[in-house]
Amino acid sequence: MSSSFGKLFRLTTFGESHGKAIGGVIDGVPANFEIDLEEVQAELDKRKPGQSSITTQRKESDTVEFLSGIFEGKTTGASIGFIIPNENQKSKDYDHLKDVYRPSHADFTYAKKYGNRDYRGGGRSSARETASRVVGGAIAKQILAKNGIDITAYVDQVGSVKLSGEIDYNEIENNVVRCPNVEDAKRMEELILATKKSGDTIGGSIVCEINHVPPGLGEPVFDKLQAELGKAMLSINAVKGFEYGSGFAGIEMKGSEHNDLFNEDGSTKTNHSGGIQGGISNGMPITMRIAFKPVATIMQDQETINSQDEIVSLQGKGRHDPCVVPRAVVIVEAMAAMVVLDMMMRDGASDI
Amino acid sequence: MSSSFGKLFRLTTFGESHGKAIGGVIDGVPANFEIDLEEVQAELDKRKPGQSSITTQRKESDTVEFLSGIFEGKTTGASIGFIIPNENQKSKDYDHLKDVYRPSHADFTYAKKYGNRDYRGGGRSSARETASRVVGGAIAKQILAKNGIDITAYVDQVGSVKLSGEIDYNEIENNVVRCPNVEDAKRMEELILATKKSGDTIGGSIVCEINHVPPGLGEPVFDKLQAELGKAMLSINAVKGFEYGSGFAGIEMKGSEHNDLFNEDGSTKTNHSGGIQGGISNGMPITMRIAFKPVATIMQDQETINSQDEIVSLQGKGRHDPCVVPRAVVIVEAMAAMVVLDMMMRDGASDI
Amino acid sequence: MSSSFGKLFRLTTFGESHGKAIGGVIDGVPANFEIDLEEVQAELDKRKPGQSSITTQRKESDTVEFLSGIFEGKTTGASIGFIIPNENQKSKDYDHLKDVYRPSHADFTYAKKYGNRDYRGGGRSSARETASRVVGGAIAKQILAKNGIDITAYVDQVGSVKLSGEIDYNEIENNVVRCPNVEDAKRMEELILATKKSGDTIGGSIVCEINHVPPGLGEPVFDKLQAELGKAMLSINAVKGFEYGSGFAGIEMKGSEHNDLFNEDGSTKTNHSGGIQGGISNGMPITMRIAFKPVATIMQDQETINSQDEIVSLQGKGRHDPCVVPRAVVIVEAMAAMVVLDMMMRDGASDI
Amino acid sequence: MSSSFGKLFRLTTFGESHGKAIGGVIDGVPANFEIDLEEVQAELDKRKPGQSSITTQRKESDTVEFLSGIFEGKTTGASIGFIIPNENQKSKDYDHLKDVYRPSHADFTYAKKYGNRDYRGGGRSSARETASRVVGGAIAKQILAKNGIDITAYVDQVGSVKLSGEIDYNEIENNVVRCPNVEDAKRMEELILATKKSGDTIGGSIVCEINHVPPGLGEPVFDKLQAELGKAMLSINAVKGFEYGSGFAGIEMKGSEHNDLFNEDGSTKTNHSGGIQGGISNGMPITMRIAFKPVATIMQDQETINSQDEIVSLQGKGRHDPCVVPRAVVIVEAMAAMVVLDMMMRDGASDI
Repeated sequence: MSSSFGKLFRLTTFGESHGKAIGGVIDGVPANFEIDLEEVQAELDKRKPGQSSITTQRKESDTVEFLSGIFEGKTTGASIGFIIPNENQKSKDYDHLKDVYRPSHADFTYAKKYGNRDYRGGGRSSARETASRVVGGAIAKQILAKNGIDITAYVDQVGSVKLSGEIDYNEIENNVVRCPNVEDAKRMEELILATKKSGDTIGGSIVCEINHVPPGLGEPVFDKLQAELGKAMLSINAVKGFEYGSGFAGIEMKGSEHNDLFNEDGSTKTNHSGGIQGGISNGMPITMRIAFKPVATIMQDQETINSQDEIVSLQGKGRHDPCVVPRAVVIVEAMAAMVVLDMMMRDGASDI
Repeated sequence: MSSSFGKLFRLTTFGESHGKAIGGVIDGVPANFEIDLEEVQAELDKRKPGQSSITTQRKESDTVEFLSGIFEGKTTGASIGFIIPNENQKSKDYDHLKDVYRPSHADFTYAKKYGNRDYRGGGRSSARETASRVVGGAIAKQILAKNGIDITAYVDQVGSVKLSGEIDYNEIENNVVRCPNVEDAKRMEELILATKKSGDTIGGSIVCEINHVPPGLGEPVFDKLQAELGKAMLSINAVKGFEYGSGFAGIEMKGSEHNDLFNEDGSTKTNHSGGIQGGISNGMPITMRIAFKPVATIMQDQETINSQDEIVSLQGKGRHDPCVVPRAVVIVEAMAAMVVLDMMMRDGASDI
Repeated sequence: MSSSFGKLFRLTTFGESHGKAIGGVIDGVPANFEIDLEEVQAELDKRKPGQSSITTQRKESDTVEFLSGIFEGKTTGASIGFIIPNENQKSKDYDHLKDVYRPSHADFTYAKKYGNRDYRGGGRSSARETASRVVGGAIAKQILAKNGIDITAYVDQVGSVKLSGEIDYNEIENNVVRCPNVEDAKRMEELILATKKSGDTIGGSIVCEINHVPPGLGEPVFDKLQAELGKAMLSINAVKGFEYGSGFAGIEMKGSEHNDLFNEDGSTKTNHSGGIQGGISNGMPITMRIAFKPVATIMQDQETINSQDEIVSLQGKGRHDPCVVPRAVVIVEAMAAMVVLDMMMRDGASDI
Repeated sequence: MSSSFGKLFRLTTFGESHGKAIGGVIDGVPANFEIDLEEVQAELDKRKPGQSSITTQRKESDTVEFLSGIFEGKTTGASIGFIIPNENQKSKDYDHLKDVYRPSHADFTYAKKYGNRDYRGGGRSSARETASRVVGGAIAKQILAKNGIDITAYVDQVGSVKLSGEIDYNEIENNVVRCPNVEDAKRMEELILATKKSGDTIGGSIVCEINHVPPGLGEPVFDKLQAELGKAMLSINAVKGFEYGSGFAGIEMKGSEHNDLFNEDGSTKTNHSGGIQGGISNGMPITMRIAFKPVATIMQDQETINSQDEIVSLQGKGRHDPCVVPRAVVIVEAMAAMVVLDMMMRDGASDI
């Protein structure tokens, strides 16, 4: 009952980790837009497993196939259906999980909610579902780019290793961590590899910036821009927290420090507001930070329970990421893009 | 375009700070429920201005009047309309703001979005709007209570003063700060009063716990329980961040530490998950923390701009809260209640 | 759970026939629009009871009071709250109905669905609720008028008396029936009066035309323009059928007769399509016809059952309309206006 | 922007007549339901082209392939993705239509709305889209059947040939017209064949009955059961009108004739109400009738215009149905099923 996202630009997804394919339908795409399909695939490649030494070795080409809504290279205004076939399914790997609830996984809650659980690879709760989000986001990003808006996310922390050096956006795609500083990236990579070696996993965080958003996007009251962005990010697997602008640091600030004073051109001297006032963009960069927990699947034995409420021993095996943030960067961007485009369309609806 | 909240239990609000009344419509209330109307008013009283030395001295009785949907003391299943008359309007206080954009207020963004701005008291961007949320939340809370679910929020930080002593839930309503520890409450109150004296304001944070939620509430994928709770909280004025369970602290944790191991009864030994796995409640307490920025209106002169993009001096005056969190506690609870009730109804829809 | 109408221009209503007031919230109204408030009241006056010898003699001034969303005469873009106080409540008139289910009324179905029924005047099922629709529709109509679109509805049949003479739109408001031909109006009025005298009621139908709609409004597939118009009309009390363009007469036509051939300017020589092709407006007048059943409350004794499933005798009394269509004309226009405006906004959302 | 139908049981579709595949996503399917997949295919077979001498000779197997949401034969509660590959695409057949607007087709309105038109086979406006509806409806029907509700539709008129003999529901699938009387079916078939021979097309109508719906389904005010059914039917290609219960005949009736008097068990002696009172089911059969226009594509030459507003001659060719109603019977049932199931889920949501 929750497989759709967005009000006017709307993505609906389907698919489990171990079915034939995952995919989705994108509705509300403006007509006559020339989608760069290779660019969509390039975005998917940033999320796909097996891309580096610090990601899961599961191999999936994650090739998207578009089925409708595009004619002679341009969108028609009709809904865009797409599928991404599942390829590297080792369903056997999951047989031992049939009756077992893995700790801090969705096994237990799915079992309680639905009674019927596809235990292979987490079924619908698998982060594989986010590949469909990347497709929707990649298209949204292209439409936003045409409107001058760009979105950049990067890893700013892994475990206790924080981004501390200067930010060079050009570095983000030059390292496997997707950190905008070469030295920090190195330290983060080392931490991830050491964690992996010990059969453990580690958390991290991602910063996302949306630039050149015109003032006026976002709806006051319940659908504030930050509320929609927060919902978008908190719907990504493993996310535990969201802050924008000053965020949690704002707790300790005084109004006289926190207030963003205006320049004559309407820009502000500081940006504690994170580009949003009263739920509406103010023209400054929109800044946010998203916290990810460590991946729950670890390569260590753990005690857990099964569906008969018996304590059982769970062996650490399978193919999983030691740290989720490097692959999540493009997912964060995708969700941000869909929110901003939806808000742009909602804002435009009143121009009559 | 955003004055409605919820999918099945749905609140729609209207009203500005300086109009005749604010109010709303609550749709989807189950029939035959006996609402305790005094309890609804008691909740509103926790939010109303002028209740203590650390809140704005603006006087409003905030008396709710129900217009429909209740017959002989019970809900009929029809929509419940209500109004809360505005009483203490000193619109004159705002004449000097007619053309001025206050720093870190919504003046600038509303002007850019709508062209036509009700400058008196912030118009629709005023936190006065949240009174209508408290009405919806109070009714939701009563329906949840009938189902065994209770919600408790409290202030856990003001500026750099953190809740550090033991938590006594009975203390929350015994002090003006709404902190569950008497000593910490005292220190927080002193900080607020000192801040007020210096003409400044200060941020703070609120913890919210939802207890006895049965496993199975929340929708996977986009409408995860934490995503809806996050959206709900981030839609409250002045909120800058949201985290649940381990939250931002999860960044620095390892999977082996973070995983919540099961007890035989399905409960978990720890609760880093914050009561939610895969977007669905697991039966443990749902825990979250919400960060509030310092109030933007300070009693100090500031430079700012007007609608002609000229730098002007803005004098600090008016009646405002030096810290928003004590009055926001009941708003946080209201939003949490509406989310959980809506999710309970969404979950129930599948029982056919 | 169904008190809201529209996706972007959205009316949410509340109120029973015998509560303090009915009212609603209109969300999504574009900012900076100058509403002619007297014109809104004039629309309400066309619907109000007691306006002529052929309507119920219940007296209600139906005075609308706006509570928000309008500042210095113009819309602000915020939600518009309004109430219409109930004045002439003779609740005593309904005491005899407390346990009785009137034939072809909603008494039985409300009792089965909700268990708790406000029996006074039909509660939420009363057509009094449509007054709130007229408020929403009157505002929508004004915004459409600014965009060159006008809507005209009229009575074209009462019982077996059909509009057969020439149509003079100027006559519609000159007679109590709201028929565009003076002679036919006279015959319809006579039929209504004779029906009333015999303690009975009679059905009728209304034609509605929407002119100067630009090509391109309406969404293909599920939200076709005719589908939304049909839903809108079928949600009005007492409506039993909806047709547009050729309607039911199209059943007996051949393709070669029915096809609307184009003129060079894109207009068509005939308009069997009723201004809509593939769910989207084609620039021709949008034409539809709506069938209303006879009012169920008759001034004759009837056998019926009570809540104990006993056969009881129901006396004909109260104040009711002998024929609903004269007062329904403005309701039909209101619903049509809200649909078209909503579709205009939905269409505009894609212009980015 | 309109490719989704339903609020809780929700179908989202995609696909053009001449793309790779059409398909959809069904969200909100209750978990643990055993879908009879062969029965779903059997429903599709009733809609598919080429099934008899009176349908288009275009050959499509219309084989549905499910991609997700079903595990070990049962629904998991996750969204169900499916595709139906397009097979028999003679896109060349449409080259002559590239710049031409066919009379009473959606060519002109799509061109005006979107600027970019997939002219092959009507693109998204093709009735081929309804195959996806049949899939959603077939699943809904099975869930309803488990709840004791069944739906039956049949052809009751083709051109001026009306169903006049006795109704034998067992005959419906025994004749190519899907008329419940063998003699009438014969006369209708002859009319269709004669019409086809003359290169023309003819309209028709379908009756739909929903039996054993419990009292209490449907939402009062805007989402009345008849309003949602009306919208559902009017969203089907070629539908021009909808009536339920007495329908348009109610116009000429008196209240004393039209009122459905109760039996002691709550059933009614007549059913002019069509099973719905005040928007809510009353337990009697829900009856409705849907009018279809003649297919616009005729095998005769017509004058029309092209995209340069020039008059051009359009030759009648291609493969089309001479009368749409025989294949539309299953589509009507599908839409009815999805509405009733959605309403059942909406009603159930309040049971807390």
